[in-house]
Amino acid sequence: MLWGTSPFALIRAPAGFFMETLKGRLKSCSINTATLGHRENLDKTIERVARAGFGGIAPWRHEVEAGDVGRYARKIRDHNLTVTGYCRSTYFPASTLQERQANIDANIRALHDAAELNAKCFVMVVGGLPEDSRDLAGAREQVTNGISHLLEHAKLIGVPLAIEPLHPMYAANRSVFSTIEQSLELCRHIDKENSGFLGIAIDIYHCWWDPMLDLSISSAGKEKRIYAYHVSDWLEPTQDMLLDRGMMGDGIVDLRAIRSHIEQAGYEGMVEVEIFSRDKWWKEHPTDVLSLCAERLQMLC
Amino acid sequence: MLWGTSPFALIRAPAGFFMETLKGRLKSCSINTATLGHRENLDKTIERVARAGFGGIAPWRHEVEAGDVGRYARKIRDHNLTVTGYCRSTYFPASTLQERQANIDANIRALHDAAELNAKCFVMVVGGLPEDSRDLAGAREQVTNGISHLLEHAKLIGVPLAIEPLHPMYAANRSVFSTIEQSLELCRHIDKENSGFLGIAIDIYHCWWDPMLDLSISSAGKEKRIYAYHVSDWLEPTQDMLLDRGMMGDGIVDLRAIRSHIEQAGYEGMVEVEIFSRDKWWKEHPTDVLSLCAERLQMLC
Repeated sequence: MLWGTSPFALIRAPAGFFMETLKGRLKSCSINTATLGHRENLDKTIERVARAGFGGIAPWRHEVEAGDVGRYARKIRDHNLTVTGYCRSTYFPASTLQERQANIDANIRALHDAAELNAKCFVMVVGGLPEDSRDLAGAREQVTNGISHLLEHAKLIGVPLAIEPLHPMYAANRSVFSTIEQSLELCRHIDKENSGFLGIAIDIYHCWWDPMLDLSISSAGKEKRIYAYHVSDWLEPTQDMLLDRGMMGDGIVDLRAIRSHIEQAGYEGMVEVEIFSRDKWWKEHPTDVLSLCAERLQMLC
Repeated sequence: MLWGTSPFALIRAPAGFFMETLKGRLKSCSINTATLGHRENLDKTIERVARAGFGGIAPWRHEVEAGDVGRYARKIRDHNLTVTGYCRSTYFPASTLQERQANIDANIRALHDAAELNAKCFVMVVGGLPEDSRDLAGAREQVTNGISHLLEHAKLIGVPLAIEPLHPMYAANRSVFSTIEQSLELCRHIDKENSGFLGIAIDIYHCWWDPMLDLSISSAGKEKRIYAYHVSDWLEPTQDMLLDRGMMGDGIVDLRAIRSHIEQAGYEGMVEVEIFSRDKWWKEHPTDVLSLCAERLQMLC
């Protein structure tokens, strides 16, 4: 395969073709703004991501809510960027009914912003246990009820919800949904008709270890529930449970193999880079980080 | 229920009965020596654990191998302690065939010591990815082959093997087997006749988050594959991925509910405390730690 899609094959191609093809592939790649450590404002980040040649961006609520959503939406559109996801839901579980309702209301407000941004999905990090609770089943039920309620609004507002199962090391404090299969089960349960408004975001950092990974990706694909695909890498050793994600290629995840499963499952959306890296990449210049992301995405993802 | 098994009911019972009953329950509880931080030699630890009223102990290989296994075995027997598990296997996966064979050989040697100690099981922490490898499926296959090979020796030597699935945050460096169900599948695959020599060790620290937990415990119980049950607690927040386990009751795990599932599944073995806690319990006096373990075990586990 000399002119195929393998990045190694491309090395043998003429330089001009090489550059054009790389640029073309970057158009299907997106940058989650957390990757740059949120050190600059969203205007600057939009410009950087577009200038680096990426086709998509995934902004966070605190960035958007700090300014005017309409203006950001226009700016993103003007830079020909797709919003691959809007990050992220307010956690659902809470100790009181009142708080739970407030969380749902906050998510409804965010859905309106997601619609204005024309986001492909609203990313749902569902939350951990309420304070002083050991009731994991109860927290999961609160999430189920919360998403069920939110789904009606999502349909009306026109923004798909993407549940992102998080690594089990966050089950207590960030997400009582830990696996793709568990999240799919939730989708099937509360969205029996598969409305197109409830699916999942697959982030390989959270699920690379799962013995059911290949099977779960296949199921999710068959059911057309894969709404987003996030990449980074798992470093060995990992120094911090939250802020030590690796650049693609620097860790132990077989990104090529997972990418292949994702494609075989029928996913045609963008691949989004989401790296939390306090001590490494958040200290580097954004231009350098974006440039390396571009290189690694094309080599591995 | 005034005289039942609830520890709260016991509070209302006469003091003498109370003490006797507590002592009786402690006899079905075991201390993994890691809980005391390995600060003293095994002789001292055996004496402490017995004096505190526990019925079992789970020593580590580096402790036993530092002395004379026969002498330790006699001492443990003389103190009326059951060895609930011998910790732990040499990791199986490696980059070369030679290293893999060396790992199996090391495990065979350990099995002989486990037999001499009359251990209820040899605890199998199976290992992570070999150096510079991203081949998770390959590592799992190496584990499968390694255990399959070791099982023949285990039958001859007379020591059951207990696979301990570890939390997914250790999938890269300590165990490519992360869930009970995945480990059970391995047991079914290589020990079809259910010989009584291949099962699992359930450690709640590793599996409390699992959406399949109740179902997996039931399956494991039905298949009579639960060879050990370890407790500690998951702290929120958790400061360190390895050495910040909590004392039972200090975290977010619903130990009572899980204990109830384990019992319903037919498990009749001891409950073993295994707490790695560099900054908290390993700094306390062993007598105090054992005393608190006794209290919490009787309240919660």
